[in-house]
Amino acid sequence: MTKEKAVRLLDAATGRKPCDLVIRNTKIVNVYTQEIQQGDLFIDNGLVVGIGGGRKAEKEFDAHGAYLVPGFIDGHCHIESSHLTPTAFSDLVVPYGTTSVIADPHEICNVCGNAAMEYMLKSGRNATLSIFYMYPSCVPATPFEHAGCILDAKEIEKFIGDDSVLGLGEMMNYPGVVNADSMVMDKLETAYKRKKNIDGHAPGVTASDLDGYIGVGISTDHECADADELRERTRRGMYVMLRQGTACKNVLDLVKGVDDGNYKRVLFCTDDRQPETIVKHGHLNHGVNLAIGAGLDPVRAITMASLNAAECYGLADRGAIAPGKRADFFLTGGLTHIKAEKVFIGGRLVAEGGNILSPSVPVAAEGVEGRMCVKDFSKERLKLRLKSDHVRIIDIIPGQVVTKAGEAHVKRDAEGAWVHDKDQDILKLAVVERHNGLGNVAVALIRGYGMEHGAVATSIAHDSHNIIVIGDNDDDMAAAVENLIGLGGGITMVMDGKVLDNHRLEVAGLMTGDGAMEVCRTLERMHETAYEKLKVSNNVDPFMTLCFMALPVIPEYKLTDIGLFDVTKFDFVDINLD
Amino acid sequence: MTKEKAVRLLDAATGRKPCDLVIRNTKIVNVYTQEIQQGDLFIDNGLVVGIGGGRKAEKEFDAHGAYLVPGFIDGHCHIESSHLTPTAFSDLVVPYGTTSVIADPHEICNVCGNAAMEYMLKSGRNATLSIFYMYPSCVPATPFEHAGCILDAKEIEKFIGDDSVLGLGEMMNYPGVVNADSMVMDKLETAYKRKKNIDGHAPGVTASDLDGYIGVGISTDHECADADELRERTRRGMYVMLRQGTACKNVLDLVKGVDDGNYKRVLFCTDDRQPETIVKHGHLNHGVNLAIGAGLDPVRAITMASLNAAECYGLADRGAIAPGKRADFFLTGGLTHIKAEKVFIGGRLVAEGGNILSPSVPVAAEGVEGRMCVKDFSKERLKLRLKSDHVRIIDIIPGQVVTKAGEAHVKRDAEGAWVHDKDQDILKLAVVERHNGLGNVAVALIRGYGMEHGAVATSIAHDSHNIIVIGDNDDDMAAAVENLIGLGGGITMVMDGKVLDNHRLEVAGLMTGDGAMEVCRTLERMHETAYEKLKVSNNVDPFMTLCFMALPVIPEYKLTDIGLFDVTKFDFVDINLD
Repeated sequence: MTKEKAVRLLDAATGRKPCDLVIRNTKIVNVYTQEIQQGDLFIDNGLVVGIGGGRKAEKEFDAHGAYLVPGFIDGHCHIESSHLTPTAFSDLVVPYGTTSVIADPHEICNVCGNAAMEYMLKSGRNATLSIFYMYPSCVPATPFEHAGCILDAKEIEKFIGDDSVLGLGEMMNYPGVVNADSMVMDKLETAYKRKKNIDGHAPGVTASDLDGYIGVGISTDHECADADELRERTRRGMYVMLRQGTACKNVLDLVKGVDDGNYKRVLFCTDDRQPETIVKHGHLNHGVNLAIGAGLDPVRAITMASLNAAECYGLADRGAIAPGKRADFFLTGGLTHIKAEKVFIGGRLVAEGGNILSPSVPVAAEGVEGRMCVKDFSKERLKLRLKSDHVRIIDIIPGQVVTKAGEAHVKRDAEGAWVHDKDQDILKLAVVERHNGLGNVAVALIRGYGMEHGAVATSIAHDSHNIIVIGDNDDDMAAAVENLIGLGGGITMVMDGKVLDNHRLEVAGLMTGDGAMEVCRTLERMHETAYEKLKVSNNVDPFMTLCFMALPVIPEYKLTDIGLFDVTKFDFVDINLD
Repeated sequence: MTKEKAVRLLDAATGRKPCDLVIRNTKIVNVYTQEIQQGDLFIDNGLVVGIGGGRKAEKEFDAHGAYLVPGFIDGHCHIESSHLTPTAFSDLVVPYGTTSVIADPHEICNVCGNAAMEYMLKSGRNATLSIFYMYPSCVPATPFEHAGCILDAKEIEKFIGDDSVLGLGEMMNYPGVVNADSMVMDKLETAYKRKKNIDGHAPGVTASDLDGYIGVGISTDHECADADELRERTRRGMYVMLRQGTACKNVLDLVKGVDDGNYKRVLFCTDDRQPETIVKHGHLNHGVNLAIGAGLDPVRAITMASLNAAECYGLADRGAIAPGKRADFFLTGGLTHIKAEKVFIGGRLVAEGGNILSPSVPVAAEGVEGRMCVKDFSKERLKLRLKSDHVRIIDIIPGQVVTKAGEAHVKRDAEGAWVHDKDQDILKLAVVERHNGLGNVAVALIRGYGMEHGAVATSIAHDSHNIIVIGDNDDDMAAAVENLIGLGGGITMVMDGKVLDNHRLEVAGLMTGDGAMEVCRTLERMHETAYEKLKVSNNVDPFMTLCFMALPVIPEYKLTDIGLFDVTKFDFVDINLD
């Protein structure tokens, strides 16, 4: 609030001046009292003024008895997972009733560091959606890979004071917290000093460790797996998020644990949600509707998706339809299945019938373009010489990002180098460092992808986002890498030296300013090509699976730009078994 | 939280080092989930570590199955009403389970301005109790009287950034807010700029005015009178306080409006609670027990008295018994009637069986001593010359601070000056400016006090706290004023030139460093004298009634140092009717 705004609000509230807008004949969901209030809602200068009161308004809008619901607040998301820049993301999700998000730009910051923070903040300011950020706490995710930068406490300091930065992002390094690792504690301290939030990420953390993790001020968890974990966390005062992402879907498991006593500590989030999932199922509303379908009271579900998130993150200006709050809300015909028919942000109608009315103006991708700084790469770097035919191998588990530590006997050429065996579903996987021209190329073998011939390469490779490429032959793999470098990042498919299709992600190799519809069309077409031409296994997502094969915090075997990594042992292993 | 504390907490939580203390065999009230958890609570370095977990502790304490309740937080109080300095107040209220208070030092700031803020903050830091302050928003309360100072936005700026100052105190000037008075808006702005709270005071404010009042960020109200007003406020997101003071008692009326939907927006407060009331009925626990007695679920009542208050004021470090929170709690044998048997603050046993274990160390009353700067006062100044015998008169309504605008025909001497008529219960009332030596003395007449002979004077006279004196003759009145000046403030009674008794309030004429028991003994003795020797009417409190006769915001007639004031007309009136 400012003095100027306050004076104007008082003039509007008391009827000294007419309000900008009245929404007549509506049923307002009151998240403070869990009631439905019928009436006319007056709005002025982007803020809610009040209900009724015999005021006048410049503009009238008839809701024809529809419900008015506070705009949804996504408690935790990675915008990068949508493949869209913040402004394009905004245009995609606002029509579903999401009016604010708390985003952790962990992916782009792994690539571009604080230049990424600058860009995300700038782009966020241009978005219709209110975008708040949590500064990524774990860049790089591990010391066993090369990201674009190292974001230590000193780097965090530069941004954590920003008004749009609500605190420190998900503290994935929970062993580091529990063991009071000094570098981790330095990062926490940056938040302590400014009384900012710290987000958690605590899969399976329990009992005494959980006491410590929460005790040091980590106040949310979106990695909660079941009702018992939810109860264990809310009892300790932690906010638990019901997550409905593309790969991780916890709403139906977790909602079983929500009750009269603890619901004020529960909110919703999307975490990682692919553009196709959003276009098909919606955004935060998807999780909310699933919870309502499972028996959660709709007004309670709405409260969790709005007020609770606002309270969790100290956003005093939103989260409810009440005097002085931002006029962020949407109309829905019913509450048993919430569908944002008309979305208002700051009192302005911004989306209708699922469409944004005027797209956000993109900002220049300064400091985050391309970022394909690859050195000393050539086809020869992909050659995999083996000591024997008995090797360690990454075994894909269909539909999961977890892999199995496998073994295999493979085919070799005269020089002892691996060659593709048509009778085995084993392919070559390589990670090519792309951030600082270190010249690192690591090669391993992977089973279960199904591809018969060709190569797929992408610059989305959690969390360091080096280039990851899979293929049956070095020529196509090298061509895919070279093509991807030329594109400035994205996803590409090559067969017999020919590029089959591209998805260009010109912003840090992770995001595009193209609209969601175009992205979805491209991805749909590319999926078809991957399955039909490359013959990728039908129970594997050709791109998402690939994206997670370089993530050395998810068991068991993963490949970083340094080499084959055994997550269970938390160390590198030799590919050769004999 | 700090890095150092966090590391120590992690060592304690994980069992790497033993905890300071364990409270065994207790039933912990969980205000996050509304459950009771049985177990052993571990505490280290003043913070809660967790329940159970097989940890070790240096000290053991057996609760023998008693309930462990989070320390109560008084949402709004004026410490001055206890007649005690903050350290003495702390010693009095902590044994009742109050571990934090949000205090508005409105009274002492009316006398000493920012010197009072300095003193209160300093004294608060020495107290066992956690004392937070709201900077008084309305000093002076009106322009129709002379307080010790004028605290405008510029003065507020000097303190509102302080960590112990949570925001702006009760905005009593609600017409000023609703009318967007520029000086008032400047004051609100000081809080906006630092995202601090603003407390309300909105008796009878409703509908559109209430929208405006809340819309500009005023987030609490402790003047709510009934369940309907409570609902009207909570619906708008305002926090409503269930107040149980000495004169104003709203708990039983308001608790009727508390329900499943709105209880998270309700807390408890004491506002103005006299020392005798505290000694007789307790502190915040009194209101909580009344609410439980009226049917409120005990765990919910406890949640309102702890977590809700902490959330309302953004006190993230307290309000619940959970990892990382301050170890502020107390043991009670039962929950149907809560009685703090042992009180812990910062993990230290500080009170037992209703007694503080080690008193807080008082601080020197620098800049707030005495403050009896009276100029040109003499008996002659009390003479009341009237144009006729027909006059305006203040009519006391027994048991209320509201008065009636009365008329009377009175007795005059040869010079036309008022003289006491034994057949009429009419006395002389005078207000003597005491802050800046302005030399103001205003005189009026008052009916219903009952006193037959003598004078009572006090330096507690809301809100400006000039000297107020009542009597049947100028000699005793003048002697009482002179004696009070000599005392440095307090309450005094004089008859036939002789001082009958004194209650010395050496700090700003409002508070004493003496213990509560001594204050209560003095006040009890003085009440007896007032009723038995001075013959004050039994249905009037001789001192409290007098204290409110100079408060020009409570209808109908009041007397300030400038003259007789008609609150309904909001202007001065002539005492003469003919």
